[in-house]
Amino acid sequence: MKALVLEKVNELALKEVMTPTEVGANDVKIKIQAVGICGSDVHYLSHGRIGHFVVEKPMILGHEAAGIVTAVGSNVKHLKEGDRVCMEPGIPQPQSAETMEGIYNLDPDVQFWATPPYDGCCSEFVVHPAAFTFKIPQHMSYAEGAMVEPLAIGMQAATKAEIKPGDIGLVYGAGTIGVMCALSALASGCAEVIVVDVVNEKLATVNDYEGITVVNSLTQDVAEVVAAKTGGRGVNVVFECCGVEAVITRICQHVAANGTVVLVGMPVEPVKFDIVAAQVKEITFKTIFRYANMYPKTINLIASGKLNVKPLISKTYKFEDSLKAYARALEANPSDVKIMIEME
Amino acid sequence: MKALVLEKVNELALKEVMTPTEVGANDVKIKIQAVGICGSDVHYLSHGRIGHFVVEKPMILGHEAAGIVTAVGSNVKHLKEGDRVCMEPGIPQPQSAETMEGIYNLDPDVQFWATPPYDGCCSEFVVHPAAFTFKIPQHMSYAEGAMVEPLAIGMQAATKAEIKPGDIGLVYGAGTIGVMCALSALASGCAEVIVVDVVNEKLATVNDYEGITVVNSLTQDVAEVVAAKTGGRGVNVVFECCGVEAVITRICQHVAANGTVVLVGMPVEPVKFDIVAAQVKEITFKTIFRYANMYPKTINLIASGKLNVKPLISKTYKFEDSLKAYARALEANPSDVKIMIEME
Amino acid sequence: MKALVLEKVNELALKEVMTPTEVGANDVKIKIQAVGICGSDVHYLSHGRIGHFVVEKPMILGHEAAGIVTAVGSNVKHLKEGDRVCMEPGIPQPQSAETMEGIYNLDPDVQFWATPPYDGCCSEFVVHPAAFTFKIPQHMSYAEGAMVEPLAIGMQAATKAEIKPGDIGLVYGAGTIGVMCALSALASGCAEVIVVDVVNEKLATVNDYEGITVVNSLTQDVAEVVAAKTGGRGVNVVFECCGVEAVITRICQHVAANGTVVLVGMPVEPVKFDIVAAQVKEITFKTIFRYANMYPKTINLIASGKLNVKPLISKTYKFEDSLKAYARALEANPSDVKIMIEME
Amino acid sequence: MKALVLEKVNELALKEVMTPTEVGANDVKIKIQAVGICGSDVHYLSHGRIGHFVVEKPMILGHEAAGIVTAVGSNVKHLKEGDRVCMEPGIPQPQSAETMEGIYNLDPDVQFWATPPYDGCCSEFVVHPAAFTFKIPQHMSYAEGAMVEPLAIGMQAATKAEIKPGDIGLVYGAGTIGVMCALSALASGCAEVIVVDVVNEKLATVNDYEGITVVNSLTQDVAEVVAAKTGGRGVNVVFECCGVEAVITRICQHVAANGTVVLVGMPVEPVKFDIVAAQVKEITFKTIFRYANMYPKTINLIASGKLNVKPLISKTYKFEDSLKAYARALEANPSDVKIMIEME
Repeated sequence: MKALVLEKVNELALKEVMTPTEVGANDVKIKIQAVGICGSDVHYLSHGRIGHFVVEKPMILGHEAAGIVTAVGSNVKHLKEGDRVCMEPGIPQPQSAETMEGIYNLDPDVQFWATPPYDGCCSEFVVHPAAFTFKIPQHMSYAEGAMVEPLAIGMQAATKAEIKPGDIGLVYGAGTIGVMCALSALASGCAEVIVVDVVNEKLATVNDYEGITVVNSLTQDVAEVVAAKTGGRGVNVVFECCGVEAVITRICQHVAANGTVVLVGMPVEPVKFDIVAAQVKEITFKTIFRYANMYPKTINLIASGKLNVKPLISKTYKFEDSLKAYARALEANPSDVKIMIEME
Repeated sequence: MKALVLEKVNELALKEVMTPTEVGANDVKIKIQAVGICGSDVHYLSHGRIGHFVVEKPMILGHEAAGIVTAVGSNVKHLKEGDRVCMEPGIPQPQSAETMEGIYNLDPDVQFWATPPYDGCCSEFVVHPAAFTFKIPQHMSYAEGAMVEPLAIGMQAATKAEIKPGDIGLVYGAGTIGVMCALSALASGCAEVIVVDVVNEKLATVNDYEGITVVNSLTQDVAEVVAAKTGGRGVNVVFECCGVEAVITRICQHVAANGTVVLVGMPVEPVKFDIVAAQVKEITFKTIFRYANMYPKTINLIASGKLNVKPLISKTYKFEDSLKAYARALEANPSDVKIMIEME
Repeated sequence: MKALVLEKVNELALKEVMTPTEVGANDVKIKIQAVGICGSDVHYLSHGRIGHFVVEKPMILGHEAAGIVTAVGSNVKHLKEGDRVCMEPGIPQPQSAETMEGIYNLDPDVQFWATPPYDGCCSEFVVHPAAFTFKIPQHMSYAEGAMVEPLAIGMQAATKAEIKPGDIGLVYGAGTIGVMCALSALASGCAEVIVVDVVNEKLATVNDYEGITVVNSLTQDVAEVVAAKTGGRGVNVVFECCGVEAVITRICQHVAANGTVVLVGMPVEPVKFDIVAAQVKEITFKTIFRYANMYPKTINLIASGKLNVKPLISKTYKFEDSLKAYARALEANPSDVKIMIEME
Repeated sequence: MKALVLEKVNELALKEVMTPTEVGANDVKIKIQAVGICGSDVHYLSHGRIGHFVVEKPMILGHEAAGIVTAVGSNVKHLKEGDRVCMEPGIPQPQSAETMEGIYNLDPDVQFWATPPYDGCCSEFVVHPAAFTFKIPQHMSYAEGAMVEPLAIGMQAATKAEIKPGDIGLVYGAGTIGVMCALSALASGCAEVIVVDVVNEKLATVNDYEGITVVNSLTQDVAEVVAAKTGGRGVNVVFECCGVEAVITRICQHVAANGTVVLVGMPVEPVKFDIVAAQVKEITFKTIFRYANMYPKTINLIASGKLNVKPLISKTYKFEDSLKAYARALEANPSDVKIMIEME
């Protein structure tokens, strides 16, 4: 079969690899139909590593995918050939302490697609555990199925935030993850979400969603918008998705008493943090690492129409044009939320 | 001023009463613009009592209201003359243990409009504590403002349910409170809500809301609908709003493991309850009594368009036609969700 | 090896069975040192079934056990030969939805020791998954290790109750499970726990624990004790461990506003339940089914001395006297909390 | 009456002031029996300010107090003359949004004893709202009653931490507040608490409590102790009570996946914080500001013997020796946890 292989830094090839043949008793085989390009894919391509994960041998890229089931293992009950599915890319150890506690994303031995040394899924076929393969309904496209993965991160953040219905939210950073958090926050009960960034093209990607107010902090006063939306009390929940120290140091300034801040952005180095500013409001901080148990609920929300990801698929390439898709992704166009590769 | 007075059982009069004149330092005076009719108003009219609350002297009816501020006390900062507002009808003792704990609705000494011996608000003016008077935006009508009260009950139920984004909900009973719970559940993160009743006219009142599926359990199989919506796992959250023993005894049958049931319906007598059916799924049961701290968030959701209450205002009468409005309410037409009285 | 086999109803034999030899890569082999007798063991002996679990072929009894590791599988890292351990008796399917969500006790396909058709552990050796085998410290006896299982039920109840430090608790029923709930509630932050029963011998088993007040409701006024302990506000948390309808119907009477009731007792039939009594206080009801992720924390509490189970081991028999042990258990002596079998 | 007055920086006088005479309908008058000295009292004495709270006129010191009721207002029901009581020093606005939400400690207009411009309670009498005055039992001394205030801070931290029974805790800093957090954590369900400091005299103050292990991080390896107590998984909850940047930057290093850190220490300036270290374990951070609704539960725990504060009362002075008491407090002797002033 064909697969998109990261040969080494800055070298990508669409080439022939072995088709997986063995389908374990608890596995399914899937013909891939759509794969999204994630910032991490691009980062491995351009840098060859993320933190202590180093690309030391050729690796198939891609972990945001949907497809069609072509074979099922003997124990599999909830899936059958021909089912439309999307796949959760991280597989924890079955009986690790973290798995038994329902926080399998924190299992230190999780095996995650396209994270060295594990191959990803930008290929014609994959074999995957059925337990991490989820049906999507007929009216949901494969590209929407592939969007479940990045959206699951926003859903993890919104779920951790324990949003109360009618809360007002604030998102710093209108990049892909900020957008996912904003949409998830709205779907989770926020009456309104304010999205702050300094790049108008990024803000434009969410400007048309009902319930979202965009603010360019270079030209507009965030405090004023927050005061107007909250009667001066401050927002109930903040999603920090830009990772910028200047934002993080003052992260509590627009939050109401007893509010929650979810730290999603990942600043490379420790950053200055104002603890006393948090204490006088008894603010709670949550952090997230990928997601756990988010696929079924994310699919529910896309399927029911409450979460509309279609406007976020900025550009679609054919599988044979995968290198062009990555070339586009490398441009980091601020208007692009998600570049999608579709198989046919 | 004119007020709608329940003289005694089955005797209602729109008559002249003393206009409140004294506005305390922490109070506001409000010219009433809209008052909804609640089932409790109708029950006091037809029965003269609810439980141990007995109408022993003439009482002004009405507790769902919105209006315009005409005077403010000397300490009041967040309101001014001319503000459009809606009012929370229950005032707890300021320093009771329940109030200090944020559960002021459970204060045994709460004073609630149109609950004997306290007058309600279906009159030209009321004086009310500013802390329980909330601004509504220009684009929200007074009738929508009056709807905040019944909706706050649904919001209390949905908030207590701790809905996770993407959950599937199930409501038993498509009466006014069932409808409020269904809409609140959707606004709180449910991807979809199934509403079950045995009367098609009631189900029709919510049939057009996106995300709601109505089921007439006399003619349709609830289990089948639940299985289709949840991949066979059962719903995450149930709102019991009909108070019927046959429903309550089997309330766990369509719930997923670890699910939540909110008991909203009020059966007059103790009912048979299947504890073991709950235990094998570790189901949690929540109960509610009115609401606390729900007004600002309910207003946020109506104001942002996430909660649309307009289709629920079934019929509107002028203040001078209040007796006709109550005559209509006494009919208990299954198509009526809310009968509204408007002042001008 | 020798094992205690339930041949059929009312027929128990200590007899030779095959020693388990194969130790899987993720398993350990354990030489059993102590096994407690549970009410369910006795019930299978005397009735041959519990609900739809029917003893249809000879079955080894026992699921409360501790022992010493004699062999470890190739993947096992946290255990080694000679380790003192206790074992969690229920093994869920590794990748079931419930397991991934951390509620593996609710997995419908869990395999539980001495629950038909699965053998228990009252034998010389067992092979068990290492993930469900937990080290106990040197200063903790094997009998204490075997007590972790019944205590884990109390811990599940106390954990679900979300006790706040300084709460006052109330337990109905001073049987084994009531005792476990009372001790767990104390260890979980309750300042005091009131234990109610009608049998003085049962109450005597917990009377000496600091923080526990026993009340015989036949001769004492529970309301008076509750009022004295809570300044008239009612207890914060109730554990219903007797399963008696008369208690359950009035379960809310001594609870404070916003309190929690954990329903632990299992009434065979649906029981009358007063929903309105719960609603006026907004009481939350939790239910439990066995336990999940409770072993390490229960061991921590026994090891640190905060949970003292030694006084609850009422009588100890040698393995060869297992039939005598069961004869004693069948007597259902109200002074017996736990009958223990020790191997040497 | 006599009162201990901070005349200005570094000038303290025990002098005659007006006795409060008017007792409002919701107030009680209390003859003070014991007052503890808090770090904030000492700081006002030596610096004349804390943050933006500046001593601009003579102020009575003291906010940790217990006494005996000598008069009650006409509305007061739960107290009577002769009752032994302790008093919560911060009084919020009765109907502020924060008060109605149960987070009255976050009311920006709270009036707090001995925080400018409000007088404290180190005097012969005070008049105080009955709602913030709590009975203590006969067997609890006034000094123990005065200890409720500092302990309430630990209780707020432990309550916010949502400790699960059997958790292992870690406290950085064995100053007064660290000690209060350690004891509160133990009383809240922790099986064991490790207390880390660099001063042996401070560690010695809690060394004798069962369940506490002290570690001097200058001479011992914290990681080793944590590994031994937690089977290598890390502690479940951390209380940061030293405010030292070097500790805060690496605050996640000994925490288990999904653990909680309560930030209690108040570093004057923003400090370097390692967000990614928190994210890979999905750690939650809570912050606290004083306390709300903690008095009754703290009294319950002291009264039941679960929280023993007696060893923490390091030295007691008579009221007439108040200046000596403050001289001792100014020494900041590392063995002193609490200096107490007793009236007779």
